[in-house]
Amino acid sequence: MVNNVWFTEYHNKNVALSVRVKDILYKDKSEYQEILILDTYDFGKVLVLDNTFQTTEFDEFIYHELISHIPLFTHPNPKDILVIGGGDGGTVREVVKHNINKVDFVELDSKVLEACKKYMPKLSCEMENEKVNIIITDGIKYVAETEKKYDVIIIDCPDPVGPAKGLFEKEFYKNVFKCLKDDGLMVQQSESPLYNLDLIKNIAKYLREAGFSIIMPYVYPMPSYPSGMWSFMLASKKYNPMEVDEETIKERLNFETKYYDEQVHKGIFLATPRFLKEAIK
Amino acid sequence: MVNNVWFTEYHNKNVALSVRVKDILYKDKSEYQEILILDTYDFGKVLVLDNTFQTTEFDEFIYHELISHIPLFTHPNPKDILVIGGGDGGTVREVVKHNINKVDFVELDSKVLEACKKYMPKLSCEMENEKVNIIITDGIKYVAETEKKYDVIIIDCPDPVGPAKGLFEKEFYKNVFKCLKDDGLMVQQSESPLYNLDLIKNIAKYLREAGFSIIMPYVYPMPSYPSGMWSFMLASKKYNPMEVDEETIKERLNFETKYYDEQVHKGIFLATPRFLKEAIK
Repeated sequence: MVNNVWFTEYHNKNVALSVRVKDILYKDKSEYQEILILDTYDFGKVLVLDNTFQTTEFDEFIYHELISHIPLFTHPNPKDILVIGGGDGGTVREVVKHNINKVDFVELDSKVLEACKKYMPKLSCEMENEKVNIIITDGIKYVAETEKKYDVIIIDCPDPVGPAKGLFEKEFYKNVFKCLKDDGLMVQQSESPLYNLDLIKNIAKYLREAGFSIIMPYVYPMPSYPSGMWSFMLASKKYNPMEVDEETIKERLNFETKYYDEQVHKGIFLATPRFLKEAIK
Repeated sequence: MVNNVWFTEYHNKNVALSVRVKDILYKDKSEYQEILILDTYDFGKVLVLDNTFQTTEFDEFIYHELISHIPLFTHPNPKDILVIGGGDGGTVREVVKHNINKVDFVELDSKVLEACKKYMPKLSCEMENEKVNIIITDGIKYVAETEKKYDVIIIDCPDPVGPAKGLFEKEFYKNVFKCLKDDGLMVQQSESPLYNLDLIKNIAKYLREAGFSIIMPYVYPMPSYPSGMWSFMLASKKYNPMEVDEETIKERLNFETKYYDEQVHKGIFLATPRFLKEAIK
C-alpha cells in the first residue's frame, strides 16, 4: 500500500516542498518547539521542528560531513571541540571520527535528543561515545558563561527564529571568539544565499567585529532545505582552509566519506558563487 | 490580491515542488510537448514543458552561466559554437558574450522558441543577434548529418524522455565527437547525481567510448530542478579545464556574471562530491 499522505514545508508564502509520508513515528511538543519524526518514501526518516525540515536520512551526509570535516581538517590538531545544537546527533557522529579528546555537545532541547536517539539511530549513534559530553542548556548562555577554550566550535543551529535568534547576533559571536583558543576556528550553519543574503552579510560583519581575521562562506546543494542552495560560514583566528596541504588531509582522512575529500576541501571555497563573494567583501 | 493558484512539479511519485502562480501567460501543445509559461511570485517567469520546470528567471543565471562559461573559458579561442536545445535562449545569450564568430543554435521545437521570444525576453534577448544562426531541427539528426566542425558543442537538453532520449545515447556522442575539431570540447546537461547516478555513469562510459580523453562532471545547486543538486558533464579532446590559467580567464571575462568567475572555474570541479567522482572512475 502506498500512502497518499504528504508532509509539506512552506519555504515562504510562495514555494513549498512536499514529501510522501509512510508513517508518523513521533510527535510531541517540547518547551521550545513542535517535534515530528516521519518515515518517508524518498527522504527516509526525517526530523521536522516547527514544520521545518531539520535533517533527512536522504541528504544528511552532505550537511554533516561539510559542517564537520571542513573545520576539523582546517585545524592541524583539533582536540577540544564544542558543538552547539544539532540534537539529531549527525554532527557529533562525524566529529568523533577525528582523533579528538572530547566534544562538549550543547543542545537546548532534551526531547529532540531523546526522540532522535530512539527513532534516528543512523544519526544519533554516537550519543553514548565516552568522548561525547552532552550538556542540556542554551548555547547562547553556555558560551557567555563557560571559561573553557576550544580548538573548534561548530554551530549546528536551526533557522534564526525563536530561541535560535540569538545564535546569529553580535554578542554571541563575541562569546564564541572568547571561547576559542588563540588558533581556534568556528563554523556556523548560515542559511540560503539565495533567500537570506542580508543575514549572511550580517553574520560576516559581526564575525569581523568579533575579531576573526579569516571569514569564508561555503556553499553546497542541500535538497531538503529552502532553495536547495545552502551555506556554512567559517571564521578562523589563524588557520586558512585554503592553506591546508592536500596530502595531510589524505593521511588524516582514515574513514569513509560520501561527499567530502581533500579536493572538495579547497574546491568548495573556490566555487563560492561570485554574488556571495561580493556580498560579504 | 494574492492568488492561491499553485503549480506543482512531481519529481517522482514521492517528492514535489510547488510554486504559487500569479498568472498563466501561455499554454499550448506542440508536435513534441505541452508548453506552459507561468508568471510566479518567487521564481519570476517560468518555462514548463510536459509539467517539468525547464527554466525560471529566479535561478536560470546559475544554469546558463555554468553550461556556457565553463566550456568557453576552457577553450583558448572558441569561434564556432553549436548549441543543441535550450529554446528559452538563455544559453545562447551567454555564448554571444564571448568573442565568437558564429553560434549554430539547433532547437527541435519552434513553438518553444516563439513563446519564449514573446514571454521571456530576459532569456531570449539574443535571438536576433547576427551571430546566432537558428536551425529548427532534431539535434540528433543534425550532428549525424552535418559536415561542420565546431570548437565547442553545448547540449542544453531536457530530461532523457521522449524525443530527448537519443541525446543520452552512444550513437549521439560519437556524432558529437565527429562534429568537434581536433581540440574541441562539449558540455551536456546531465541530471541529478542524487537521483540519476546510473545515467551519469552511462554518459561517462559512452563519452569514453566515443573517444574523449578528458571527462569531468561538475555539480551545482539548482533550486528548480529535482533534488536541487544538478550536474553538467564536460568531455574534451585536448583542453583540461583545470589547466586554464586564472589570469587568462580574468582578462577574457569582460562581462558581468553572478555565479561564474575564475575561481569557480576550477573550484567547481574540485568540489565534485566524492560519491560522484567514484561513480564515474
